[in-house]
Amino acid sequence: MSDDADDMPLDAPVRRRVLYWHADSQAETREDDLAREDPLEIRVRGRSFSLTMRTPGHDEELAAGFLLGEGLIRRREDLVRIEPCDRNEQGHIINVVLGPGVVVDFEQYTRHTFASSSCGLCGKASIDTIRRQFPQLDSKVEVESRVLLKLPERMERAQADFHRTGGLHAAALFDAAGRLRVLREDIGRHNAVDKVLGYGLLKQELPLNDAILLVSGRLSFEILQKSLAGGIPILAAVSAPSTLAAEFAQQSGQTLIGFLRDQRMNVYTHPQRVQFGSGPSL
Amino acid sequence: MSDDADDMPLDAPVRRRVLYWHADSQAETREDDLAREDPLEIRVRGRSFSLTMRTPGHDEELAAGFLLGEGLIRRREDLVRIEPCDRNEQGHIINVVLGPGVVVDFEQYTRHTFASSSCGLCGKASIDTIRRQFPQLDSKVEVESRVLLKLPERMERAQADFHRTGGLHAAALFDAAGRLRVLREDIGRHNAVDKVLGYGLLKQELPLNDAILLVSGRLSFEILQKSLAGGIPILAAVSAPSTLAAEFAQQSGQTLIGFLRDQRMNVYTHPQRVQFGSGPSL
Repeated sequence: MSDDADDMPLDAPVRRRVLYWHADSQAETREDDLAREDPLEIRVRGRSFSLTMRTPGHDEELAAGFLLGEGLIRRREDLVRIEPCDRNEQGHIINVVLGPGVVVDFEQYTRHTFASSSCGLCGKASIDTIRRQFPQLDSKVEVESRVLLKLPERMERAQADFHRTGGLHAAALFDAAGRLRVLREDIGRHNAVDKVLGYGLLKQELPLNDAILLVSGRLSFEILQKSLAGGIPILAAVSAPSTLAAEFAQQSGQTLIGFLRDQRMNVYTHPQRVQFGSGPSL
Repeated sequence: MSDDADDMPLDAPVRRRVLYWHADSQAETREDDLAREDPLEIRVRGRSFSLTMRTPGHDEELAAGFLLGEGLIRRREDLVRIEPCDRNEQGHIINVVLGPGVVVDFEQYTRHTFASSSCGLCGKASIDTIRRQFPQLDSKVEVESRVLLKLPERMERAQADFHRTGGLHAAALFDAAGRLRVLREDIGRHNAVDKVLGYGLLKQELPLNDAILLVSGRLSFEILQKSLAGGIPILAAVSAPSTLAAEFAQQSGQTLIGFLRDQRMNVYTHPQRVQFGSGPSL
């Protein structure tokens, strides 16, 4: 942590002296803003549950959304409170206090299980540890394709309002009319999604079954799974989804949209939620 | 895993039917190639050590590079062999057989430690678990700024040679003359770096103290730390580094270059390895 960062708001970028060089001229020193990256430890019932590198800010949302995506909590009532600890010398810590009725199987969430069973069986068990069980998707929302086309620009414009470093991923929730509900940024794209989900949980807006989640990067398996935890029926990205994201969405019933840019899109799964007017179906 | 994927090489993209829509016309079905994402379980001494989502291919390099970055192994001799298990129904597993002299403190590598000590102290301990100890950087390499400017295009050209999906991160090693030594791609940017490092370790080319590592995305703390494990003195990215990446590089002695594009660059730390001709110093 540089000294001058300590006087700034947590999520502000940090100014740093750099050597700038352009091929047409001599190198010169300039000031440059860097996106903040700091560790956050999430503690549950006094135990260290997760350590993630993140851009500080909206840490309560990040913790709530992360625990939702891990299947540890399901609704606002599962949380008594989330209390940030004071920043210490080397990092940030946040304590999550769960209701007494919430059962936590800590063993299930230890990714390094160090089991010693045989290869094939243990492989299956390990892979299963990343698949969580979430409630069935229940959504009747529909969105016009022309509304979807407008979302990336709206997200970018909202980013520009408080965005100074060029180094952050974004995740945003929209309603079916294309209105922005919430935007969160982070140096980690999973974190940006966690913050949006945590926002929904803390505002008691779950399930988000009338929402569209737009992310600035790719759509991976983990982002699909997180969004299902929030009950989100429509996922969209400016870039490509992965094979596993498409397979997950096919099974979960989520509508998966990629390459949403330049007046076009690909719909990978469940296109019935997108109104194109007349056209073929998958 | 879709059926048609099983007949293809591991790292080939998977073709999928999608609904394509452009604002000027009607929606139509098309074929689209998706980047593969599958889980890989890395097992060490019969224990499950890590589970990562990755693009299949170069899995031995991924495992070797990951374990190098975690500080578990230091050199080729620490490995007896890396043997991929047969693909099973739900994922991939790779077994790493270490030499008998390699000491592994499995406890140290359990990220979910579930310790119950008090807040401030435990926070420090947890943050420390992500900081590894690596040998001091030892490098006299220098590179001309005009050589650096050419690297992103060279990496992109090499990507284009076997790149069909638009959904992959890249990491590449160059020598000081700008010659490409190795390029690896993955849906996860950490994985692409792990593969490059694993390549260096398996080829007995460590420390890579005359190399430049270029990544297609951002430069985060973890990528800096991994590259230090490989002894790499110069890190460059087309996009921005984070605050923690810059702080890490300042301390490790690594040269950190960002925004390497459009005939320009920012040098954040240790610019003495870049030859600009005449100009100011940081």
